[in-house]
Amino acid sequence: MRQALGAKILALPTPVWVVGAFDQNGDPNAMTAAWCGVDCSKPPCLGVSLRAATYTHGCIMARKAFTLNIPSAAQAREVDYFGMASGRDARKLETAGMTWSQGSKVDAPCINEFPITVECRLAHTAELGLHTRFTGEIMEVWASQDILDEQGRPDMALVEPLLYNPGTRLYAKAGDAVGSAFSIGRDLI
Amino acid sequence: MRQALGAKILALPTPVWVVGAFDQNGDPNAMTAAWCGVDCSKPPCLGVSLRAATYTHGCIMARKAFTLNIPSAAQAREVDYFGMASGRDARKLETAGMTWSQGSKVDAPCINEFPITVECRLAHTAELGLHTRFTGEIMEVWASQDILDEQGRPDMALVEPLLYNPGTRLYAKAGDAVGSAFSIGRDLI
Repeated sequence: MRQALGAKILALPTPVWVVGAFDQNGDPNAMTAAWCGVDCSKPPCLGVSLRAATYTHGCIMARKAFTLNIPSAAQAREVDYFGMASGRDARKLETAGMTWSQGSKVDAPCINEFPITVECRLAHTAELGLHTRFTGEIMEVWASQDILDEQGRPDMALVEPLLYNPGTRLYAKAGDAVGSAFSIGRDLI
Repeated sequence: MRQALGAKILALPTPVWVVGAFDQNGDPNAMTAAWCGVDCSKPPCLGVSLRAATYTHGCIMARKAFTLNIPSAAQAREVDYFGMASGRDARKLETAGMTWSQGSKVDAPCINEFPITVECRLAHTAELGLHTRFTGEIMEVWASQDILDEQGRPDMALVEPLLYNPGTRLYAKAGDAVGSAFSIGRDLI
């Protein structure tokens, strides 16, 4: 039996990524976002939606670049802090005890402690209402060697990325593997 | 130690949702997408990116409506099939043994067997390259009663939604809860 829940954001799960950007002083800022994902394959693009009121929104508009940093569930406390405090008031990376490196391809900070960082060049913006969708072309991906599989690809079980449920406001982490895409449903074709 | 992996889609995880749409004959179609997520809070919008070559792309352009259906990991086989076959050649819902209902607010099919269906009115499109980003305003959400928590919200542990790793092409499912957002990092403020 199904029931109607109204016109609410009750989709799940969403990824939980940390946006890195420089402010007008050249200081690095980190902000957590859950309205994010892959926007396009060619050119390869990730997207993140931010409110205009956020500090990071202005930073991206000015520099036309950002990073998306993919945390591990073990970093949930720091990630949650990055989603509550503002770069207007705090040096969030210092407070969280994290460090950063200059992007190799774009003018944005890579946060060293996260297992994966994706450098993005702002390619497209869409004003959708409260949120602006920033679509960034992927220019480089950095990963910790200890989360790569034998073929050099990030392994979900090693990263243990964070998920978010907008309805309950609970974080979860990725769990067990289920099977290979373009494979486990092949018998139905 | 970090290493550069190149300009590839190696972000993770992505959600795995099934897009429902009517074709020009009024037949329901289902297509799996992993380039999807939340695009905006007000108005509440979900987004999904599709290649122009897909059957569903034309369906959405014509009807200006679609549903996003959130599967459980137990439905991975059917979901994988929906991502491989085309509605041009197959009646995918029938093949998978699934049923549908007319959307209550939009002109698109709700797939009954999935734990959650979100009805979306096409609100914005962006041509990003190989993919078009369809942003749909949420008009209604339907959920199976057996995946709701005590407060009537979808429970991630009961839904057990699917995740995808674009690098390895492996599905996983959501795992254990990690804590409450806007809470577990509060001591750092």
